[in-house]
Amino acid sequence: MSADTPQAYDDLLEAYRRVSNLESAVGVLSWDQQVTMPDGGAPARSRQLSTLSGLRHELLTDDEVADALDAAAEADLNDEQQAVVREIRREHERAAAVPRELIEQISAKSSEALEVWESAKAESDFSQFAPILEELVELRREYAAEIDPDRDPYAVLFEEYEPYLGLETAEEVLEQLREELVPLIDAVGDSDVTLPDPFADGTYSEQAQEELSREILTDLGYDWERGRLDTSSHPFTSGNQFDCRVTTRFLEDDPLSALTATIHEFGHAFYSLGLPQEEYGTPLGSSRNLSVHESQSRLWENHVGRSRPFWELIEEDVRGAFDGLEDVDGEAFYRAANRVYDDNLIRVDADELTYHMHIVVRFEIERDLVNGDLDVEDVPEVWNDKYEQYLGVRPENDAEGALQDIHWSHGNFGYFPTYTLGSVMAAQLYAAAEDDLGDLDEAIHEGEFEDLQTWLRENVHRHGARYTTDELVELATGESYTADYFLDYVTEKYSELYEL
Amino acid sequence: MSADTPQAYDDLLEAYRRVSNLESAVGVLSWDQQVTMPDGGAPARSRQLSTLSGLRHELLTDDEVADALDAAAEADLNDEQQAVVREIRREHERAAAVPRELIEQISAKSSEALEVWESAKAESDFSQFAPILEELVELRREYAAEIDPDRDPYAVLFEEYEPYLGLETAEEVLEQLREELVPLIDAVGDSDVTLPDPFADGTYSEQAQEELSREILTDLGYDWERGRLDTSSHPFTSGNQFDCRVTTRFLEDDPLSALTATIHEFGHAFYSLGLPQEEYGTPLGSSRNLSVHESQSRLWENHVGRSRPFWELIEEDVRGAFDGLEDVDGEAFYRAANRVYDDNLIRVDADELTYHMHIVVRFEIERDLVNGDLDVEDVPEVWNDKYEQYLGVRPENDAEGALQDIHWSHGNFGYFPTYTLGSVMAAQLYAAAEDDLGDLDEAIHEGEFEDLQTWLRENVHRHGARYTTDELVELATGESYTADYFLDYVTEKYSELYEL
Repeated sequence: MSADTPQAYDDLLEAYRRVSNLESAVGVLSWDQQVTMPDGGAPARSRQLSTLSGLRHELLTDDEVADALDAAAEADLNDEQQAVVREIRREHERAAAVPRELIEQISAKSSEALEVWESAKAESDFSQFAPILEELVELRREYAAEIDPDRDPYAVLFEEYEPYLGLETAEEVLEQLREELVPLIDAVGDSDVTLPDPFADGTYSEQAQEELSREILTDLGYDWERGRLDTSSHPFTSGNQFDCRVTTRFLEDDPLSALTATIHEFGHAFYSLGLPQEEYGTPLGSSRNLSVHESQSRLWENHVGRSRPFWELIEEDVRGAFDGLEDVDGEAFYRAANRVYDDNLIRVDADELTYHMHIVVRFEIERDLVNGDLDVEDVPEVWNDKYEQYLGVRPENDAEGALQDIHWSHGNFGYFPTYTLGSVMAAQLYAAAEDDLGDLDEAIHEGEFEDLQTWLRENVHRHGARYTTDELVELATGESYTADYFLDYVTEKYSELYEL
Repeated sequence: MSADTPQAYDDLLEAYRRVSNLESAVGVLSWDQQVTMPDGGAPARSRQLSTLSGLRHELLTDDEVADALDAAAEADLNDEQQAVVREIRREHERAAAVPRELIEQISAKSSEALEVWESAKAESDFSQFAPILEELVELRREYAAEIDPDRDPYAVLFEEYEPYLGLETAEEVLEQLREELVPLIDAVGDSDVTLPDPFADGTYSEQAQEELSREILTDLGYDWERGRLDTSSHPFTSGNQFDCRVTTRFLEDDPLSALTATIHEFGHAFYSLGLPQEEYGTPLGSSRNLSVHESQSRLWENHVGRSRPFWELIEEDVRGAFDGLEDVDGEAFYRAANRVYDDNLIRVDADELTYHMHIVVRFEIERDLVNGDLDVEDVPEVWNDKYEQYLGVRPENDAEGALQDIHWSHGNFGYFPTYTLGSVMAAQLYAAAEDDLGDLDEAIHEGEFEDLQTWLRENVHRHGARYTTDELVELATGESYTADYFLDYVTEKYSELYEL
């Protein structure tokens, strides 16, 4: 250990804090763009964002960061410090590997692709989108090759979103889910039980829905001193441990949509707000990654928000918020919130059982696309075949088929699996929490969320990115990452609901 | 002209665009902080702002910018290009002259001073504020000496806000105003006329006030596609030619306050929205400076918004917005909007006649403070004496005296005069517009603002910072900058109102 190594560590952290503050500023500008910015502001905003993103890239890939990383590697650092260096090194190396021109090319092509996708979707014509999708896939292949030319490009891209669980694990989990859920989904389809929708015939004012969303966020313990609720065309969460905001959107004929979205975003925000404040701007004060973030949103959305005791807790509020629900009780709401649609074509409308088959379809297609095992022109056909095979339904057109999601038009390949990895992790974490705390149904029924929240703070949030994903799961649950808890959970839940 | 000079100019512009985008991002983060940010977000926000401001300073003072400036100076540039280089050079040289440590010291001391000022004001005790004000004055003297050690420090500081009119002009104008307005103010005080306040006894809901503000912004032609109205503790305008937002605040017992503030901010926004879009991020797409900006806000607030025909135009809307005003006509509203208070102690509540004596007091005190001709401890006494002398009233305590404004706690000395310089310029521009377009009363009465707006777009807004302040005034009005039009305007207006 040389005398100047602690200095190198401090320098590294200082440089990283600037990178992190630029990222946060990008977050604020993006939130503003989606929530408050007047439409006319777009041209200036895109240039501001481009400057900030460019500066972030320059600072992160700076030679001084590289030197500080090397010097820190020689130093006698404690475990926490080593974790900090590990995280910064990963980000630095990934960013430094890719030439700036390629990043700009991808960014420009994605902007273009977004418009093409929108119009192709409006006209339900995948062939309009195919040529630019092909170009994006090719650019992403080049991108992956810059990072590691010796591995399958899809594996490299996947690590952009989940760097530690590994694509093999993801593939195993998704395969296991496909094998065990497809028969369960078939059984639900064959069941004589239908779960009625008490909301089916009404219209529900935006104002009443918003009040209810606020009430429920308050019930869940959302810290309004560090957050806010707004509307945007797609619900999202943005912020950090000092200021983490959620958005939702209100559909006049379907109040369940906003409610579940709000609870989902609460889970994201509750995670960010639980990161240590004193570590703001460092990896120890940053969230682990997309899968872990999604585990927190799904835990609240599904294990709490779609549970029987939760609906018994809020049934009075829901009846009070809207007309025409006088005769609906908590059990009926619970069943409505867990219906499996017959016409199960759209991912974002799916229940928590079939949802993952939507993901498996996308995963298999994007993996084969990126690795060169599938031609772009064949995507719609393969998509439709897989829907028939896994979900028992066949899209009638491209808009409700391969064009339904925005992700590929952003040039994002490898992102979809994190949704499922997060759900699986949510079930494992929830089981571990119940193992430690006892059955949580009674507490949820009483609106007492503190024990669960303290458990999550203690076992997940406070660590920031100190541990890798697999380490974090092992530490929190005492076991390796596994889909068993998720499969047990949905099997039990849907067997009861559909009397299988 | 060497072969590489156009490249130097392009490089310069490219570097400046990044500086400008960082500034815009700071603007968005500040708007968010004052309008939408939850309170808890402050610690993270201040670090984000500090990173962005630091980067802006680094980019602006970069050696590459210095080299590009030198290369551009050798080039055969056209007039517009030369103006661009002039503006960037001024900003660059000023920023490069001051060591970063001093800027950070001032920034840190100002944050501290703000808290001290707040508590001193709450306890109405200037002596609590005096020591830190002394330190701020000293730091600003050092700051001025870094920029130019051979000139009076106050003159150097003044140029931070109005770089071209020169302190001599400002002093002449303020002296002329003091000489001619003090007798007029005395005469108003002696007049038997009192202008009644029809709003005096009511309370006016925030909602009704907000609707009225929106209506009036729409009447004035505010472009809602590129703007929004929100509330904040102090009204302000923030943005650029693509997205320029105004804020106001609503006092339940005084709807005139929000109305005039809204129209004032409209004037600022209308200027920014009139800057050329294709020049966004360059000096040609930036506003001239504070005095010119203030001329635009004052022109709309006073020459339009406090005019008789304007109140005749909106009288029906105002009556419709609130209860209890059935018998008040446009003439009565007009008189109410132009009352001169007896108890005229607070700058932000002042009418457009006495307002400038509030400024003269501050100007004379801050000039003498910075130049070492006045001790901090003597400020309250001098303040009160000057109020008695210029305005005929004497503050009874420091809160309504020398502690009323926030500016000095920010370490801003030299800012106050721009308010008056802007008002004076507004009168000159308005007179020139009427000279070109004919009397505007009839058009205002009919709500037809297009001719005036086109004139302002054509003669002021579209030029950005191409011309210096004095050139711009000369170009727009055919005359040098002069206070004559302002003095004629207020003399005529108040003589009629108070039957002098």
